[in-house]
Amino acid sequence: MNEDSVIKVGICGYGNLGKGVELALEKVEDMELKAIFTRRNPDTIFPKTKDVRIVPIEKAYLWKDKLDVVILCGGSKEDIPKQLPEFSNLFNTVNTFDTHSNIQKLYETTDTITKKAKKVAVISTGWDPGLFSKIRKLGDTILPNANYYTFWGPGVSQGHSDAIRAISGVKNAIQYTIPNLEIMEKIKKGEIAKIETTKMHERDCYVAADKTQQERIEQEIKKMPTYFEGYKTTVHFVTEEEIKKRQQKMQHEGWVICVGETGKENRQIMEFHLALDSNPEFTGAVALAYARAAIKLQKAGEYGAKTVTQICIDDMATKKQNDSFKYI
Amino acid sequence: MNEDSVIKVGICGYGNLGKGVELALEKVEDMELKAIFTRRNPDTIFPKTKDVRIVPIEKAYLWKDKLDVVILCGGSKEDIPKQLPEFSNLFNTVNTFDTHSNIQKLYETTDTITKKAKKVAVISTGWDPGLFSKIRKLGDTILPNANYYTFWGPGVSQGHSDAIRAISGVKNAIQYTIPNLEIMEKIKKGEIAKIETTKMHERDCYVAADKTQQERIEQEIKKMPTYFEGYKTTVHFVTEEEIKKRQQKMQHEGWVICVGETGKENRQIMEFHLALDSNPEFTGAVALAYARAAIKLQKAGEYGAKTVTQICIDDMATKKQNDSFKYI
Repeated sequence: MNEDSVIKVGICGYGNLGKGVELALEKVEDMELKAIFTRRNPDTIFPKTKDVRIVPIEKAYLWKDKLDVVILCGGSKEDIPKQLPEFSNLFNTVNTFDTHSNIQKLYETTDTITKKAKKVAVISTGWDPGLFSKIRKLGDTILPNANYYTFWGPGVSQGHSDAIRAISGVKNAIQYTIPNLEIMEKIKKGEIAKIETTKMHERDCYVAADKTQQERIEQEIKKMPTYFEGYKTTVHFVTEEEIKKRQQKMQHEGWVICVGETGKENRQIMEFHLALDSNPEFTGAVALAYARAAIKLQKAGEYGAKTVTQICIDDMATKKQNDSFKYI
Repeated sequence: MNEDSVIKVGICGYGNLGKGVELALEKVEDMELKAIFTRRNPDTIFPKTKDVRIVPIEKAYLWKDKLDVVILCGGSKEDIPKQLPEFSNLFNTVNTFDTHSNIQKLYETTDTITKKAKKVAVISTGWDPGLFSKIRKLGDTILPNANYYTFWGPGVSQGHSDAIRAISGVKNAIQYTIPNLEIMEKIKKGEIAKIETTKMHERDCYVAADKTQQERIEQEIKKMPTYFEGYKTTVHFVTEEEIKKRQQKMQHEGWVICVGETGKENRQIMEFHLALDSNPEFTGAVALAYARAAIKLQKAGEYGAKTVTQICIDDMATKKQNDSFKYI
């Protein structure tokens, strides 16, 4: 491949997701990691990739014309809302922002900035939001008024783990979301149409805390509105070591199930299922495919913020993949 | 909805698929069936929809400016290759052409015609080719060099049924493709990577023929190259009535499974599954969603032939669906 045509990629944030993007980059032929932007001391960061510059985040502007796209790998709560306006003014960007209720606002703000800056920002990629959003909407375009159901897990929910860690006395915690497979089967068989969200999942919590605090903490968890209240929640008290060990494992799984109808009560089911050994590595790989799209759209003059449903698969594909009809 | 903004749809061919499109049209708010083009005597056709004109196919040109899109519902062997050049010169079109090996040629021919005529032709929609093509390519953009596997059934294969009916002495026949679920499970568990196509499915044939012919026919079926040779094939001889009864049932099912890897041997599985009570009604519903895209692309001046991977989901969606972030 001609060096000029290799896509030059930057990563902002070198946590689990940033490392996932780095690993995904090893597998693609048309992209190269050139820079990692970080808030940490660059001397403390040791990437796996050769010839990568570690750059303090406040110096990112110096790379303005040196990168084709930057993947924002920070958290959705603090990092992305702060970084996206700055970065989308300088670079094409892709993020995996996952606070569902704030996506529209982020889209609108970013759209204004990127249209002025003549850049493209693909927002909320990854798998949910991301691929799952795509399938939910695809289902509805084909089967109007379909019922759709999303199941997650078994896998760690960062949001729920954070919520437990915020309780006073909790030293560390990890929360697993467990799908109710019995309910899932009933949905697929058409035995259930409406179901409360709280019945679709169970919540399994592993918490490290002093013995004297445990009873109170367990009650606080189980009564926490939105996060745990109404769910079947189990709390296990374990050592900090066990939690650390559990935090190394990054499996996750999920389903989108659309149940629609055509004609005279003909049930039509569309199901999308992911089973992931590594959630951050897969999320990183999805972000990279959208990075290709960001660049193509910018070259075509289609500036602005984009959601995954605004992007076709050919724009995510390599030239080699698009030259072929083999997938058809 | 404003009458002017309702999409005016024509159907060409009123067999199972044409009827499926008609039923799908009942469920969508932004489209109306206006004309059915047919090779048969129009007096013999009784559509379910009110106020639909039944038009001899050779008079289709009279409808040139009266329809927004025509769904070509004829067969892939004879009808589509003949009708598409004529219709794509007059209308935006959508088809479900499914002879995989000829799709590229059909694409190229149609692309030339539609670019001249300033029309859009979406080719090979439906589910395979169609949604399954989309998922196979999506999988490869995210997980380069993933292995992907397609399973069909239990369901009728028209191509295989036709092949049996072409054997001398066969009065009627229907062939069911049966997926090997054990192999599927092994693939998902990573226990099998490479597998011959002939091991992924079994073939179950129901044939009506005179007793004296049955032994020869069974041998001819089982030895037929490409279609049956190498597959586990079972032949049941039954009455013509039973076959007619079986031909009324239109269930089908299918899976695309992509098995890829990221990082250090982390297995990532993406699975798409359809379970359909009515294959033609679902295929019709998919074609309709792409009809919306054909019109939008034509209005945007993006003339030519399009494959499903060149079309984003927002172009398949209604305005109401696109005004919402609820799928994200």
